[in-house]
Amino acid sequence: MATDTATSAPRETADDIREAAEAPAAPATIKGDYQPPAVDVPALTAILDGEYAEVRQLVRDNLVEHESILTDAEEMGFDEFRERVKEVVQELAATGQSAMGFPEEYGGAGDIGASIAAFETLALGDLSVLVKVGVQFGLFGGAVLQLGTKRHHDRYLEPLIKGELLGCFAMSEHGHGSNVQALETVATYDAEAGEFSISTTSEQGYKDWIGNAALHGEVAVVFAQLRVAGEDHGVHAFVVPIRVDGEAAPGVRIEDDGRKMGLNGVDNGKLWFDDARVPREALLNRFGDVDEDGVYSSPIESANRRFFTTIGTLVQGRVCVGGGGINAAKVAITIAVKYALRRRQFEATSEDVEDILLDYGQHQRRLLPLLARTYALHFAQEIVARETHDVFTGANTDEGDRRRLESRAAGTKALGTWHCTRTIQEGREACGGAGYLAANRFAALKADSDIFTTFEGDNTVLMQLVAKGLLTDYAGGFEDLDQLGMVRFVGGLAVETVVERTSVHKLFSALKDALPGGDAKWYEEAGLLDPDYQLAMLRFREEHMIGGVARRLKRGVDAGHNPGAVFSRAQDHVIGASHAHMERLVLEAFVDKVRSLPEGDERTALSLLCDLHALSVIESDRAWFMEHGRLTVQRSKAVTREVNALCRRIRPIAGELVDALAVPRAMLRADDLVGTD
Amino acid sequence: MATDTATSAPRETADDIREAAEAPAAPATIKGDYQPPAVDVPALTAILDGEYAEVRQLVRDNLVEHESILTDAEEMGFDEFRERVKEVVQELAATGQSAMGFPEEYGGAGDIGASIAAFETLALGDLSVLVKVGVQFGLFGGAVLQLGTKRHHDRYLEPLIKGELLGCFAMSEHGHGSNVQALETVATYDAEAGEFSISTTSEQGYKDWIGNAALHGEVAVVFAQLRVAGEDHGVHAFVVPIRVDGEAAPGVRIEDDGRKMGLNGVDNGKLWFDDARVPREALLNRFGDVDEDGVYSSPIESANRRFFTTIGTLVQGRVCVGGGGINAAKVAITIAVKYALRRRQFEATSEDVEDILLDYGQHQRRLLPLLARTYALHFAQEIVARETHDVFTGANTDEGDRRRLESRAAGTKALGTWHCTRTIQEGREACGGAGYLAANRFAALKADSDIFTTFEGDNTVLMQLVAKGLLTDYAGGFEDLDQLGMVRFVGGLAVETVVERTSVHKLFSALKDALPGGDAKWYEEAGLLDPDYQLAMLRFREEHMIGGVARRLKRGVDAGHNPGAVFSRAQDHVIGASHAHMERLVLEAFVDKVRSLPEGDERTALSLLCDLHALSVIESDRAWFMEHGRLTVQRSKAVTREVNALCRRIRPIAGELVDALAVPRAMLRADDLVGTD
Repeated sequence: MATDTATSAPRETADDIREAAEAPAAPATIKGDYQPPAVDVPALTAILDGEYAEVRQLVRDNLVEHESILTDAEEMGFDEFRERVKEVVQELAATGQSAMGFPEEYGGAGDIGASIAAFETLALGDLSVLVKVGVQFGLFGGAVLQLGTKRHHDRYLEPLIKGELLGCFAMSEHGHGSNVQALETVATYDAEAGEFSISTTSEQGYKDWIGNAALHGEVAVVFAQLRVAGEDHGVHAFVVPIRVDGEAAPGVRIEDDGRKMGLNGVDNGKLWFDDARVPREALLNRFGDVDEDGVYSSPIESANRRFFTTIGTLVQGRVCVGGGGINAAKVAITIAVKYALRRRQFEATSEDVEDILLDYGQHQRRLLPLLARTYALHFAQEIVARETHDVFTGANTDEGDRRRLESRAAGTKALGTWHCTRTIQEGREACGGAGYLAANRFAALKADSDIFTTFEGDNTVLMQLVAKGLLTDYAGGFEDLDQLGMVRFVGGLAVETVVERTSVHKLFSALKDALPGGDAKWYEEAGLLDPDYQLAMLRFREEHMIGGVARRLKRGVDAGHNPGAVFSRAQDHVIGASHAHMERLVLEAFVDKVRSLPEGDERTALSLLCDLHALSVIESDRAWFMEHGRLTVQRSKAVTREVNALCRRIRPIAGELVDALAVPRAMLRADDLVGTD
Repeated sequence: MATDTATSAPRETADDIREAAEAPAAPATIKGDYQPPAVDVPALTAILDGEYAEVRQLVRDNLVEHESILTDAEEMGFDEFRERVKEVVQELAATGQSAMGFPEEYGGAGDIGASIAAFETLALGDLSVLVKVGVQFGLFGGAVLQLGTKRHHDRYLEPLIKGELLGCFAMSEHGHGSNVQALETVATYDAEAGEFSISTTSEQGYKDWIGNAALHGEVAVVFAQLRVAGEDHGVHAFVVPIRVDGEAAPGVRIEDDGRKMGLNGVDNGKLWFDDARVPREALLNRFGDVDEDGVYSSPIESANRRFFTTIGTLVQGRVCVGGGGINAAKVAITIAVKYALRRRQFEATSEDVEDILLDYGQHQRRLLPLLARTYALHFAQEIVARETHDVFTGANTDEGDRRRLESRAAGTKALGTWHCTRTIQEGREACGGAGYLAANRFAALKADSDIFTTFEGDNTVLMQLVAKGLLTDYAGGFEDLDQLGMVRFVGGLAVETVVERTSVHKLFSALKDALPGGDAKWYEEAGLLDPDYQLAMLRFREEHMIGGVARRLKRGVDAGHNPGAVFSRAQDHVIGASHAHMERLVLEAFVDKVRSLPEGDERTALSLLCDLHALSVIESDRAWFMEHGRLTVQRSKAVTREVNALCRRIRPIAGELVDALAVPRAMLRADDLVGTD
């Protein structure tokens, strides 16, 4: 028997009938009564640009002025393009756009928020330029500024801000990318000479992937284990000349990393040190110093804590890369949506006129949730940038806030760069063969941005760092969180983060109280389009996963297993908890932004995008919500239907929504894809 | 209240306790009693290589001999590399490896299965070479062979097989990639001159992305609307000279498509025709001819059917691209697994030795399901290749089998190339910064293979083509399937496919009978590692989705909505049904292969991979299975745990499993990633 589905599973038929009743087949474009909001594009752009609208516009203008770099990237040879990118970086430096984060007395603007906004916006253009700017002003300049003291600032900041003195940030080694605490470059203090002797101490211990090293860098900030009078003091940074008149400096060997998948305008290289000598003053001594008598001192007693503080100052780089990824995604989604609004293929609804691609339900599904997520991440990034500004300008000196920022920056960088990779890939495929031509943007975007998920912290490792912060609150239960191997595991990159569990708890219960159905039934009775319901779902998941993973780890340790092995085995669960946490933060940022706006068409449009984003996130993990009793089968199917319905409601304003992202027309290239008008 | 999860959801705590009992924390590597199978690598390779082991080995040897092409791709300029690829293609042609599918009387081997095996294996090397081989011997040569008759074979086959006459396959137009029936190139018969006049008739109607067009092609098989005495006969193919002594032939204009994201060794170009003249005999006249008096005739009466027959002969190209994608994925997964077996990072389980990457649970999760899926797709492709051989050599003349093959080839191409994109991306990220260097393989693999998801049929359109076959059986219910717009929608690429619903039904009920619990409870009581259970799950999903989508479409049409709009709105559901169908076929192929082997360690190893593949597929869609009453919450969580456990069991043999894929060492390059031993 069982020749018919209904026989073995009567429930299925009932479902089908219900589905039929709820979703009568109708056109994939909405006609009828629905009136889409009348989006004012400049007004929406103003909401996106926020307080740094002027800075963003300055960078957009600079990008347009240098638009030829996009064709240079395609047409110039390897060596020529490296020189061209260097020139552009120096020309941009002359406009002041890359100095905004430096103190005014050295020629900067003293505005870290502005510097992040400028950097992010630069990601709309050629990404080799972006990354070289990041290396020079963010990493190299940032290290001198944050780890050095007045003597270093006086000597280096002005020429480096002007782009006259190009430098490197020599942290990663071939053997250790993520595990910074294990670096194998050693700086030994020679008390007699008053110098440090810097050496590479193992075969795998050379510096690798170092931007500006292969060609243009004259000095490098070198991270090395500090050894004074036979005693190790952990990782410190030193300013080391690596190139004099174009030749490698004494004690330094340089090799070119050669061609890469992308970013070929950046000259990455390898550095070996063999008794390279620098004076005592070359130590960037904000958090640790060696005096003339060879005595080590530090304002921070714990070596571990000192390491985290040193590394923690570099959080800005991570914030910038995350923002760069989100902005590169804007270019891809803009091209893909504009193409889908022009391109017709197949006569689906009429005999003789082919349908517009974006009128197909599947095409809406491919692109519109990515557009919604681009907006969501933009607003989430805005908060991280503002918090970075407040912490680094001293407007906020709360130690807990600083740690929360480090965690949040790590997670936002991971989400933003994964989104970038995914959006570019989907956008390319959605543009078919045209997307494959170098003359359009996808080829360069894809090749150049691919490494974003790895540099400034491998995304998977960063998500573990987020988890560490989340679990710290549970540490009491383990006697010592270090025992778990968590600190060792993420130690290299890590910062001591604290995310207070109680605050999630409080938020969650407050939200539940606001929802219909009371305590027991909130998740069954609230409307799917109620932002409080959406947030409550994500908060419930976060809280449940963190608690679950903490208990699981504790059980393993209590049972006497090797803590590192316990961690490794639970690793997917740990990373899942971090995702849950970050998704909650992103949705909160979007909901808060929408709520902060006055009633009107722009708010209505953003509200549609926010709903689409929230329900897409819930839909993609609806298995979990069902497994944990927070979605019934009927409601889970309703979420999917609602995602489709939101796509249809957003479809008529899709063009305005990508225009508001304000990618300059010249940065899209792709005349053929997006039109010349 | 509600300060504690347990208060609001007591069920959660019970779950946690159960989970704790079922999955005691233990190391992520298995010690204890588990004895992994002792895999004999050559024996496993022999199973993979199957009946064409010799052909595959010939190609591997040729690849190693031409290994310098991998560095050429990186170092040569744009123009030089195009010439170099042409040379290599001609050298390979001289070994006979690219002629295997042609008749013996013209210098071929008359073995289509061998030609597919040879092409697939070529994908382990440089992909520009692969694609240029595909253009010349598969598309151009295939069209002459399949659409032409003796006069064309006699004239063209020998020189083209030798690589002396290079040609193009000019089907795609700028305005129409997927919708071939709407092509805007027209061939008008001039009875007086006894010639066809070929012209591009619209601004968007020029031929585009045509391989060999920009530089090397002397002739092109041009697809155009045939017009005789004012009457249109649909799309036919013509051999048209496009280049004489290096200059465009009269009536032909050629432009270079220029640089692309990848595959820059292939000279893609655009072709315009303006009264280009060819003799009457230039028509490839197997399925339609014009006689001296200007009278059209065809052995196939229906114009629609003739079109499908014409296009259907080209299914081999799709089979080849799918196989190419699967084999390119082998390179990526091999490098990533080998790197993960060498690279150590972080001291997780010990104080002083860093752990091997592949011992981390998350890293196993990233790579091992992709390895399992690579095996699964390899065996699925083996079946498609065999069926192609049987149909095209005439060993199987069943019309239904031919249509099923066309559908299956389309779906396997889509799955294989999506898997390729995903595996290369995940592999690159899993190799960190090292994966980004051009000296390793990922950069080229990623850039070159990206277009595989688009050419030879856009994957999304192909999945609709699969759906069309699945729905044909339901067509009675709609009066006329054409009414749905389905035929129009996928018409261009389409072939008339039939997949008999009854056969799925029969398989499903036979399986259920074999499982414990009888009709009602099979899905709750069978073991997760029972292949019959796994297959029954995928068959249930397939059957349910096809039935559901058919009813949904019918409802919409019955309610009087525009059929095309009904289709568009249900499009994600339609494509979901195709996925369900294809995943069932892939798992069946893998299960059948395992069952066909004698007991022994290789069978045990493949059985582990097959389980991992099956449960990964179920896990990734576990929301659907819960929504449709086929997974309980507890069982869904058990699937996830079992996937993790299988990863741990496969971990000790991961090295042997990638070695058995037999990617020549020279094709991996990446000394730094995979070691020099």
